[in-house]
Amino acid sequence: MPRVGVILGGAGVYDGSEIHEAVITLLSIENKMGDYLCIAPNINQMHTVNHLTGNESEGEQRNVLVESARIARGNVKDIKDVDPNEIDAIILPGGFGAAKNLCDFAVNGADCDVNQDVKELLLNMNKAGKPIGAMCIAPVILAKIFGIYKPTLTIGTDKGTAEAVEKMGAAHKDCPVDDIVVDRENRLVTTPAYMLAKGISEAASGIDRLVEEVLAMI
Amino acid sequence: MPRVGVILGGAGVYDGSEIHEAVITLLSIENKMGDYLCIAPNINQMHTVNHLTGNESEGEQRNVLVESARIARGNVKDIKDVDPNEIDAIILPGGFGAAKNLCDFAVNGADCDVNQDVKELLLNMNKAGKPIGAMCIAPVILAKIFGIYKPTLTIGTDKGTAEAVEKMGAAHKDCPVDDIVVDRENRLVTTPAYMLAKGISEAASGIDRLVEEVLAMI
Repeated sequence: MPRVGVILGGAGVYDGSEIHEAVITLLSIENKMGDYLCIAPNINQMHTVNHLTGNESEGEQRNVLVESARIARGNVKDIKDVDPNEIDAIILPGGFGAAKNLCDFAVNGADCDVNQDVKELLLNMNKAGKPIGAMCIAPVILAKIFGIYKPTLTIGTDKGTAEAVEKMGAAHKDCPVDDIVVDRENRLVTTPAYMLAKGISEAASGIDRLVEEVLAMI
Repeated sequence: MPRVGVILGGAGVYDGSEIHEAVITLLSIENKMGDYLCIAPNINQMHTVNHLTGNESEGEQRNVLVESARIARGNVKDIKDVDPNEIDAIILPGGFGAAKNLCDFAVNGADCDVNQDVKELLLNMNKAGKPIGAMCIAPVILAKIFGIYKPTLTIGTDKGTAEAVEKMGAAHKDCPVDDIVVDRENRLVTTPAYMLAKGISEAASGIDRLVEEVLAMI
């Protein structure tokens, strides 16, 4: 059974992983006869956002690994302990956590830094020829790490984000919510998810296709 | 388009709503051409649990409405502001939040009290002949509120919980994870979900059937 590492960045669209995207990814992997391993870095979140008001919850510090465990029902592995040999592919759900905790794109745009452990795992997976999928805003991480290979990616149709993706060396391709962009040479699969989705079933339509393609590439 | 109220009790299996169950419920409603309204009480959680260790995170206070907003992407309504006329049915996902925040079954078993606003909304919906679905541990709330009508419910196969359900006046029926128990007279639908599910796709199999039956009953 193929095993897919799912890198989480907290639990909640505004300061962590987008919960719908993360859960749909896990469900889709299992429905397509795969197994998953939830992974997260043991670091503090950039900040905590009150999801009811949208405002920062000042002074409230949460940990990415601990909050990711909410989505993983407790079963999440510290990315420092993950051996690339134990997984056959990686998928990154989106949400601001991908752009605030896994890298700092939300603050620094194209000049962002990617968390060192996330970077190492993705580079090792790619070097071993294993496929990587990313959705929503998470493809900016792939643009930063793999920009030197000039990969083709999508973050949907947002012009500002697409420009930043291209500044990091990737070619951006506009993509509708129910479709995916496949870069066969670099073994990268991306889909817009909630960058474009107006509802959960729209998000699921593209994520299902992404999971299917990633599993097929293994 | 039928509109289903989904009552959340936080975000995380050990102190809030079971996230997989909640998201699968929302996805299933949309996939079956329904619309959803996320609802939660504006109260403090019983406690906060570190989902990585399983231990209580002492001194950390979280609010049920605010944490539920993580699952609802910010779009959650205070149960005090919900008019029964704006929804056609209600579904309660499980997770310990259902038994710690929406009622105190986790502490007091069959002698539990249900949150007053949850109780009023469920009683009003039932009086209006609108269907109510509940999964995992959440059927204990239905047993407590509707015990006087002797409804037939399931929480899976756990003997202790089944005995408590019967002590509150309901008839308990064992049920496999991919099936549902339908009480047509009282218009209640229940399924075990993570009381029995060994994985997310197993949980989804019963939840999908529950959502289908609740929508059919409208």
